[in-house]
Amino acid sequence: MSMNNLGIVKRNIARTDRAAVEQLSRYGVATIHEAMGRVGLLKPYMRPIYAGAQLCGTAVTVLLHPGDNWMMHVAAELLREGDVVVVACSADCEDGFFGELLATSFRARGGRGLVIDGGVRDVKDLTAMQFPVFSRAISAKGTIKATLGSVNIPVVCAGALVNPGDVVVADDDGVVVVPLAIAQQVADAAAARENNEAAKRKRLAAGELGLDMYGMRETLATAGLKYVD
Amino acid sequence: MSMNNLGIVKRNIARTDRAAVEQLSRYGVATIHEAMGRVGLLKPYMRPIYAGAQLCGTAVTVLLHPGDNWMMHVAAELLREGDVVVVACSADCEDGFFGELLATSFRARGGRGLVIDGGVRDVKDLTAMQFPVFSRAISAKGTIKATLGSVNIPVVCAGALVNPGDVVVADDDGVVVVPLAIAQQVADAAAARENNEAAKRKRLAAGELGLDMYGMRETLATAGLKYVD
Amino acid sequence: MSMNNLGIVKRNIARTDRAAVEQLSRYGVATIHEAMGRVGLLKPYMRPIYAGAQLCGTAVTVLLHPGDNWMMHVAAELLREGDVVVVACSADCEDGFFGELLATSFRARGGRGLVIDGGVRDVKDLTAMQFPVFSRAISAKGTIKATLGSVNIPVVCAGALVNPGDVVVADDDGVVVVPLAIAQQVADAAAARENNEAAKRKRLAAGELGLDMYGMRETLATAGLKYVD
Amino acid sequence: MSMNNLGIVKRNIARTDRAAVEQLSRYGVATIHEAMGRVGLLKPYMRPIYAGAQLCGTAVTVLLHPGDNWMMHVAAELLREGDVVVVACSADCEDGFFGELLATSFRARGGRGLVIDGGVRDVKDLTAMQFPVFSRAISAKGTIKATLGSVNIPVVCAGALVNPGDVVVADDDGVVVVPLAIAQQVADAAAARENNEAAKRKRLAAGELGLDMYGMRETLATAGLKYVD
Amino acid sequence: MSMNNLGIVKRNIARTDRAAVEQLSRYGVATIHEAMGRVGLLKPYMRPIYAGAQLCGTAVTVLLHPGDNWMMHVAAELLREGDVVVVACSADCEDGFFGELLATSFRARGGRGLVIDGGVRDVKDLTAMQFPVFSRAISAKGTIKATLGSVNIPVVCAGALVNPGDVVVADDDGVVVVPLAIAQQVADAAAARENNEAAKRKRLAAGELGLDMYGMRETLATAGLKYVD
Amino acid sequence: MSMNNLGIVKRNIARTDRAAVEQLSRYGVATIHEAMGRVGLLKPYMRPIYAGAQLCGTAVTVLLHPGDNWMMHVAAELLREGDVVVVACSADCEDGFFGELLATSFRARGGRGLVIDGGVRDVKDLTAMQFPVFSRAISAKGTIKATLGSVNIPVVCAGALVNPGDVVVADDDGVVVVPLAIAQQVADAAAARENNEAAKRKRLAAGELGLDMYGMRETLATAGLKYVD
Repeated sequence: MSMNNLGIVKRNIARTDRAAVEQLSRYGVATIHEAMGRVGLLKPYMRPIYAGAQLCGTAVTVLLHPGDNWMMHVAAELLREGDVVVVACSADCEDGFFGELLATSFRARGGRGLVIDGGVRDVKDLTAMQFPVFSRAISAKGTIKATLGSVNIPVVCAGALVNPGDVVVADDDGVVVVPLAIAQQVADAAAARENNEAAKRKRLAAGELGLDMYGMRETLATAGLKYVD
Repeated sequence: MSMNNLGIVKRNIARTDRAAVEQLSRYGVATIHEAMGRVGLLKPYMRPIYAGAQLCGTAVTVLLHPGDNWMMHVAAELLREGDVVVVACSADCEDGFFGELLATSFRARGGRGLVIDGGVRDVKDLTAMQFPVFSRAISAKGTIKATLGSVNIPVVCAGALVNPGDVVVADDDGVVVVPLAIAQQVADAAAARENNEAAKRKRLAAGELGLDMYGMRETLATAGLKYVD
Repeated sequence: MSMNNLGIVKRNIARTDRAAVEQLSRYGVATIHEAMGRVGLLKPYMRPIYAGAQLCGTAVTVLLHPGDNWMMHVAAELLREGDVVVVACSADCEDGFFGELLATSFRARGGRGLVIDGGVRDVKDLTAMQFPVFSRAISAKGTIKATLGSVNIPVVCAGALVNPGDVVVADDDGVVVVPLAIAQQVADAAAARENNEAAKRKRLAAGELGLDMYGMRETLATAGLKYVD
Repeated sequence: MSMNNLGIVKRNIARTDRAAVEQLSRYGVATIHEAMGRVGLLKPYMRPIYAGAQLCGTAVTVLLHPGDNWMMHVAAELLREGDVVVVACSADCEDGFFGELLATSFRARGGRGLVIDGGVRDVKDLTAMQFPVFSRAISAKGTIKATLGSVNIPVVCAGALVNPGDVVVADDDGVVVVPLAIAQQVADAAAARENNEAAKRKRLAAGELGLDMYGMRETLATAGLKYVD
Repeated sequence: MSMNNLGIVKRNIARTDRAAVEQLSRYGVATIHEAMGRVGLLKPYMRPIYAGAQLCGTAVTVLLHPGDNWMMHVAAELLREGDVVVVACSADCEDGFFGELLATSFRARGGRGLVIDGGVRDVKDLTAMQFPVFSRAISAKGTIKATLGSVNIPVVCAGALVNPGDVVVADDDGVVVVPLAIAQQVADAAAARENNEAAKRKRLAAGELGLDMYGMRETLATAGLKYVD
Repeated sequence: MSMNNLGIVKRNIARTDRAAVEQLSRYGVATIHEAMGRVGLLKPYMRPIYAGAQLCGTAVTVLLHPGDNWMMHVAAELLREGDVVVVACSADCEDGFFGELLATSFRARGGRGLVIDGGVRDVKDLTAMQFPVFSRAISAKGTIKATLGSVNIPVVCAGALVNPGDVVVADDDGVVVVPLAIAQQVADAAAARENNEAAKRKRLAAGELGLDMYGMRETLATAGLKYVD
């Protein structure tokens, strides 16, 4: 985020270890967000372009300018198997920066999906391809290729800081970024949380109350809760 | 809505008669809203979390504070077969107050769905469970359990006043609340309206114009409508 | 858009030639928008009421006032096979101006769908009918029939000027209007564009980079793009 | 909020005692909201039309329909010295329902200001008159006088329930409603709070820390706060 | 709005007669909008950048692309005494397209102000200059000069069609466009309306009710209004 | 932004050199944003709470949770002369986190203003104190003091990354953050830019066209601009 960050492409980035990514892919965004201590969530305006879309992979980051998707093509060359392209824009813009031609190219180069703080188009084709995309908007308006942005620099996407190589996980609940340095730790915490929830789910399904299961009755009384008839 | 309303739980509430609820469940939200004289609609930002979700039941109301879902567990204990939980928040908040564990608990206690002027999460699981939820947002961000709210007090949810025991009906068109006192009357008016529409539908499908069927031509001319070529 | 435009109904309008409409119906909104030089798109808040909705037809335009859908019935009489009703409102209003009864009437008179800068209702029924609607909102709140608007005058709908007889095309990506005078020209440009894209798609799917296919490497270098390790 | 509420005008309403209103007028909205236990606030989209506008008075409530301000004139007749007109609309509408002619009439009849969940116009004139208005929008678009609404029924205005005769207080921070039944109690609580704050203000201005003044250091340590260098 | 509209600059345009513009400048936007039959208003999100800003002049229209203000400089050359620059953008963009340098240039060439469906910056300087600007946003983010737009073509600005030479009037209530062809007629209607209002204002200020002055009592009774105690 | 970031307070931070801050305080946000290469701007929804507010200082950062302002008091102790408090929230929340008591405390400890991606209250008092605040909302709704956040960690505020010690500059045009490492460099670039603009302003005021001053005529012709009559 310095004066020298425009027009920079970083070729080699450290990526989160594949085993940690694989493990994270088993959990939902809500579980991971909890496991990480409730940080790393992108703004909730980021929505899947089709119901049921989900992705998990290592971030290749792109900084675009409004109305210009030139750097998407530069990013395509740097993709490796298991990457997710994460796109920020230097100002709010809902143009359709991405469509099925780029999706075809990204997939051919190993890309597993797209997270973009902007608009996309060709929703029908992308749905048919089952290429998962999480965006702030859908717009048929295309973009030009005239202004330099950057690839693989730290970006702020939908309010969250994403560094190249971080893990990005997205599903119907939203998008969360897990920093490379703590990915394995978060994956383990998510696993523990999930195991814990399975037991709770069974008890709740049997009609046991959260009030009893979590032992809340006394705390509520202490806090002053009054039951009236 | 008084100074004494925080930290209050009303155990016993009058619920709309089951037969009236059952009858109302046969009609869509738009029909009921018309039948009631065009009042009782929640703001249109309330949307189903999956296409086709619908619910009809008696309201158990909850007042939460931003970022805190403690009272949801208190409400679970008070649910009876056929209830719908209606949640208002003391300030706008799009956090995910509700997920599949609470849905499991609500369903086990007789709950038929949720209407919440806030966010929810676990959309994939809730869709698989076919647990109908109407909310203002979807967010993976969870909540804490630290602040007292209230249960079964009158609440203003998405702009509409909901009293405990009122009927809440929701479908793809939105959410409407029918006050207990007029539920049977509204159900009857909806039935009359529906019968009337079936006949109209047949005539319109045959190509008859609303201009003729509703006898509008003269009124339009009187109002000054001019046809030009 | 003059002082005399309220309460006017134009009976006979020139419609775009059927062959051009038919040809345009083969292309997506994004393709047509590009083929036309990136003009004519409605604001991206216009969304289909069900996933996969699409339409292409000649515009019958309607200008309504907030909370009043009287002119919809006047428009029904003027529909011909292949028309799409395009509705503007004199002020922002998200009421449900349209539902399945009007859809039944429109379809019986040859109407192929609706584009409305306002709200609609009966979404479940409209989806079952597969009657394509693109709107700014969904609302169960109905409207009255008391104020004169106009039919078949030029309207500004969701930010775009639509003249009666223009072609309107809509799909998951949005809505675009193609002026009658250039419809055939745009259809031909869209065809050329589509052919061109098929070849590109094949090359990109095989892993060729856009950087090479579009010959961007030199331009990027000239613009100052720097690769770092 | 029943089926019988449209077209009703209640002539005689109980108003909050003048002394309590007078006492409440000395405090800001934030202080009153705190004193009341953090309920009764209208949504924060309600803003003054000029900086520094403020009002405090007893509510005369009006329910309008989109695009129609007929009931405003009915309300004018019912105003008494010290009243504030509170307007809700049966659906979201940003039309300019109110301007300087109505303000002139309201003032002549004792009205002290307007709170409206809709739009207003003549902002320049209203500012010159120093007639305080809190609204959700400003719009030059006028309204008609054709549809019955109601006067002096309970309304939900910007998310808050307002009963006729309640006290409405508004300033640069927003709008709060104080129910008639607790107005004196809230006024007293506000006075206590204000006295308490004056002492605190002096200590903070002298450089004392809230950490010490409120005794927070131990609680923070218990909660796990860690200081690092 | 055709395929040939990009990159076009129309040098000579017909402007509304100066006398009509002068006459229109005496009335507020709300009055003119009423006088014109309630058409021609731009969306209410268009706001003055400082309280009290107002303008009235003949439109020189500009179509920009997101993030690019190149055509502003082309427009500057075409300004004549009494012109107002009206800017539309091919897609929603809140960048700061305009600042005090351009304002200095516009004023030096005869420009009286700016109406822009986009963002502006240098608000402090523009306020000091008392250069009236009505915009949808304020943003410090600048723009580039790289893409051709057009000057003096018909544009849709904030939802309204503006033709070069039309009169644009703006004040605290919003922005209205008066087509050249009816400018004198509208000015006369506004004068009539204003005279009429002065008399009404005096009667209302004396405490006479609109109910009596407009003779509404009988109509209200006929419509079914019920007074209760 | 790691798992260890909650409940952390960093006591000693490196602050941008006072001379550089002083120099930056002479320039507007738009100028600094340009001088820095068009990065570092907060989202344009961040607005001053009174017209003409401006600030320039070194950032003390705070991460809050919705509805809880506890950490503000922790931050107060760490303020030094010339600091600006920059507040991010872990989820969107428009509550009034800040008012005149905290402003009194901040000022007494050397604080020069507040930038907060949330709401504030006591606007009238803050205006009287001329304590500059830039926020996303104004709300009378207060907050509690119950949840740990952090102080002086990197935060994402209104879409921009802010590190403790960075320079924050705000005026009517918005808010920009200048990283510590490049503050002097940006200040120098801003000075150069300002000098350059003074000369341009004089020429434009004399009626010279940007077309000539910037030598754009040839580029425009090459790009294909067509003048018609």
